[in-house]
Amino acid sequence: MTQAITTQNQGKISTVKGLKCKECGAEYEAKAIHVCEFCFGPLEVAYDYDALRRSVTRESIQAGPNSIWRYRAFLPVETENPIDVGTGMTPLVRANRLARRLGLKKLYIKNDAVNMPTLSFKDRVVSVALTRARELGFTTVSCASTGNLANSTAAIAAHAGLDCCVFIPADLEAGKILGTLIYGPTVMAVQGNYDQVNRLCCEVANTQGWGFVNINLRPYYSEGSKTLGYEVAEQLGWELPDHIVAPLASGSLFTKIYKGFQEFIKVGLVADKSVRFSGAQAEGCSPIAQAFRENRDFVQPVKPSTIAKSIAIGNPADGIYALEVARKTGGNIESVNDAEIIEGMKLLAETEGIFTETAGGTTIAVLKKLVEAGKIDPEETTVVYITGNGLKTQEAVQGYIGEPLTIEPKLDSFERALERSRTLERLDWQQVLV
Amino acid sequence: MTQAITTQNQGKISTVKGLKCKECGAEYEAKAIHVCEFCFGPLEVAYDYDALRRSVTRESIQAGPNSIWRYRAFLPVETENPIDVGTGMTPLVRANRLARRLGLKKLYIKNDAVNMPTLSFKDRVVSVALTRARELGFTTVSCASTGNLANSTAAIAAHAGLDCCVFIPADLEAGKILGTLIYGPTVMAVQGNYDQVNRLCCEVANTQGWGFVNINLRPYYSEGSKTLGYEVAEQLGWELPDHIVAPLASGSLFTKIYKGFQEFIKVGLVADKSVRFSGAQAEGCSPIAQAFRENRDFVQPVKPSTIAKSIAIGNPADGIYALEVARKTGGNIESVNDAEIIEGMKLLAETEGIFTETAGGTTIAVLKKLVEAGKIDPEETTVVYITGNGLKTQEAVQGYIGEPLTIEPKLDSFERALERSRTLERLDWQQVLV
Repeated sequence: MTQAITTQNQGKISTVKGLKCKECGAEYEAKAIHVCEFCFGPLEVAYDYDALRRSVTRESIQAGPNSIWRYRAFLPVETENPIDVGTGMTPLVRANRLARRLGLKKLYIKNDAVNMPTLSFKDRVVSVALTRARELGFTTVSCASTGNLANSTAAIAAHAGLDCCVFIPADLEAGKILGTLIYGPTVMAVQGNYDQVNRLCCEVANTQGWGFVNINLRPYYSEGSKTLGYEVAEQLGWELPDHIVAPLASGSLFTKIYKGFQEFIKVGLVADKSVRFSGAQAEGCSPIAQAFRENRDFVQPVKPSTIAKSIAIGNPADGIYALEVARKTGGNIESVNDAEIIEGMKLLAETEGIFTETAGGTTIAVLKKLVEAGKIDPEETTVVYITGNGLKTQEAVQGYIGEPLTIEPKLDSFERALERSRTLERLDWQQVLV
Repeated sequence: MTQAITTQNQGKISTVKGLKCKECGAEYEAKAIHVCEFCFGPLEVAYDYDALRRSVTRESIQAGPNSIWRYRAFLPVETENPIDVGTGMTPLVRANRLARRLGLKKLYIKNDAVNMPTLSFKDRVVSVALTRARELGFTTVSCASTGNLANSTAAIAAHAGLDCCVFIPADLEAGKILGTLIYGPTVMAVQGNYDQVNRLCCEVANTQGWGFVNINLRPYYSEGSKTLGYEVAEQLGWELPDHIVAPLASGSLFTKIYKGFQEFIKVGLVADKSVRFSGAQAEGCSPIAQAFRENRDFVQPVKPSTIAKSIAIGNPADGIYALEVARKTGGNIESVNDAEIIEGMKLLAETEGIFTETAGGTTIAVLKKLVEAGKIDPEETTVVYITGNGLKTQEAVQGYIGEPLTIEPKLDSFERALERSRTLERLDWQQVLV
C-alpha cells in the first residue's frame, strides 16, 4: 500500500504485554518508566509472541503502509493511527562498486541517510516514542541529543503539534543546530559533552513532567530501531544476511537490530540463521571497542574527542549489551581515527553516490578495516547500516574534497580548465605509479 | 515489492515510439537530440499508449519496485534494469496543521525534500537521464545546474560508475557545492548566472561528446518529472487532486506533472478530471509570473536576483508551456519576495516538520498568497510539491530562526533559562495582542 499519510487517532490494538527488567526480569505496566526499581536494570518492552505468530504474515506486512508502521504489531503502541510522516522503508542498495573496491562479493548499504523526515535513523525511534508519548498523555516532549535526535524530535513534534524542548552539547555542528531551530522548539545548548547533557536531562525528567524520548520513554523509543532489522530482512526477500556492520553510540541500535532479527525468526517470518554483528566506533570515543579488545565484560567510560560527534557517547547506556551481541554472534567491534572516518565518507560517496555524516564514515572505515583483517568473509552477504546524512556535518570534509575549477562563461576558458585538470589527474596517477 | 535494489543490465523492452517536435510534430529516432532541425522546437518523447493501456494495470505498478521505476513502462528507457538507487515514492503527507493555519480543508505535501539519494526532485530526472545515457553509450555525463541537479548527477553517476563533469554558477550556496564535490566529479564554477552557464554548456555539448542530462538528453531527462504526477495519483488512491501548486524554474517540472496526470487518464489508470495547476516563482526571478500577470503569451527573460537560487532561471526553456498549462486549467502563477520565502520555509517547518530549501519556501509562500486571494478554494484537495531540502540552503534562514539558550550542565541553570524563555514568549504574545 502506498496511500497518502494521515495521522488521526481512532482504533486501538496492542500485542504489548508490559515492560520487563533486562536484568532481574521484574515486570511493570507499560508506563513512562525506564529503570527497574529493584535492581536499577533497564526496562524493555515484552510482547505476546504467540499472538504475533497467529496474526502477522508476510502478506499482512506488505499490505501495510510504506513506512516503519507496516511493522506496527511489533512496536509498543496501541493506536492504529500512529504519527506517520513516511519514516522508514529506506533503500537497501546493492553496493557493487564499493564491494569491488574492498574485495567483497555481496555487499548492501541500508541507507538511512535519506530517512524521513530528518535524514537519520533517529526518525524511526522518535516516530515510535512520540506516538507513545501522545498515548501516555504528554504534551511536551524532550530529549538529550548529539544532534540527529534533536532534529528528529523537533520535526516530528512540530508535525504532531506537541511542545518541544531539546538539549544538545553547545559545540555541535552548525547544520545540526540550525536543523533543529527551524522547527521552532526551545533549544538548550549545554556547555558540556553529551554525557553531561544526558545527566542533566535525567534530572529535568524528574522535575518537569515532560516525555524525554530517550529517558523516561526510552523503552518505547529504542524499539523503533528494530525496524532496521525488519526492513533488511524483508528487502532481502525475507532472508537474514550473514553479517551486519553498524555504528555504536549508546549501543542501543545494535542490540535492537539483533532483537528485530530474533523476533522475525521467533514468529516464523524468516528462517533461523546466525548473523554476525560487528560494531563501529570512532577511536576518540571507543569505550565499547576497548572493552571488546581487552575482553572485558564492563565498559569503562571515556571523555569523547572525535569529529564523529553523533556517536560520541563516552558512557554508553547499552554498551554491555552491545558487547554481548558482538561476542555471541562471532562479530567484532573496531574503531578508526578521524582521518580514516573522512576517507570512509569519501569512499562511500565516490563509489556509491551516498553522502553520509561522520558516523557513516566511521562505519565504512571499520568495514574496510575488518575486511582487510580477514574478519569479514568475501562470500558473506554483508549489510552496512548508514545512519545519517553528510549535509549535517559539512565541516568534517571541508578542505578534504578539492575545489571547483573557476572559469569564465566562455568555451576557451572551459577548455583550458579541463586540460589543466586532466594534466593534474595524469600527474596524480604518475605519482601513484611511482 | 520492496526488494533490495540492484543495478544490472539484462532485458530490454520499451513503449517509446520516438521523439516528436512539440511545435511542428516532426518525428525523430530516440537519440541524443533535443531540438527540431526544421523549426527549432523542443523534442519530446512519444509513446505507444495503446500498448500501455493493454499492458499496465494498477496491480502491475504496485507489484513493481518501491521507486520511480514502478512506472518504467511510462519512462523513455529500454532496459529492465535501470539505475535504481531508491529514487521516488517519497511521502505524500496530509498537512492538517498547515491546512488549519491557512484555512484549507484537504492539503497534502508531496515531500521530495527527502528524495533519494540527494534530497531533491532532480534525483528523478537524473535517474532516467543516466539510465538512457548508458543505453546510448555515453561514458561521461554532465549538466548545467543551479545546484540540486549537480548534486544528483554527481551522486548517481558515482553509483553507476560514469565519469562526470558538472557546471554551476560560482556563487552557489556552500552546501550545494560541497554536496557535489563529495562524489568526486569535475566541478566547473562559472563566473556568471545560470543562463550563462546554460549557454556555455550548449556549446560544450556540441564539442565534447558528453551526455548533458538537461541539454542533449533533455527529452529523456524531463520525462522523469512525470513520476511526481503518477505518485500523487497513486498515493491519493488512484485519484487526481483538484489543485496542485509547484515551483517554476525552467517550467519543465510543471508541464510534466500535467503530462503525467494526462497519461494516467489516457490509459485508464485514473478517472478523467480537471486539475488546476498553479505555479510559484520568486519575485527576483519571475519571468513566467510576469507574463501570466500581463496576459502575454511570450516570456521576457530577466536577470535573476533572489535567495531562491535553485529556481533562478531568467530565461526558462519551458516557460511558455507552463503558462499554457496554468491558463488552460484555470490555475494561477504568482511570485513572492525573499522575506516571504523565508517565512514560507519557517511556516512549513513549524507546522509540518518539513525543512525545505528556498524553492520550497517560495512554493509555500505562494500557496498562502493564493489562499488569501481566494484563488484556492478551501474545499479543493490541494497538493503542494516540495522539491528540495533546507540543509542545502542554510544561509537563507541563518539569523531568522532564533538561537539556542546556552546553559551550564546544571538544573538551576536550565530552570533560569526556561523561565527567561517563557517570559520572552509571554512578552511576544502581549505584543501580538496589543
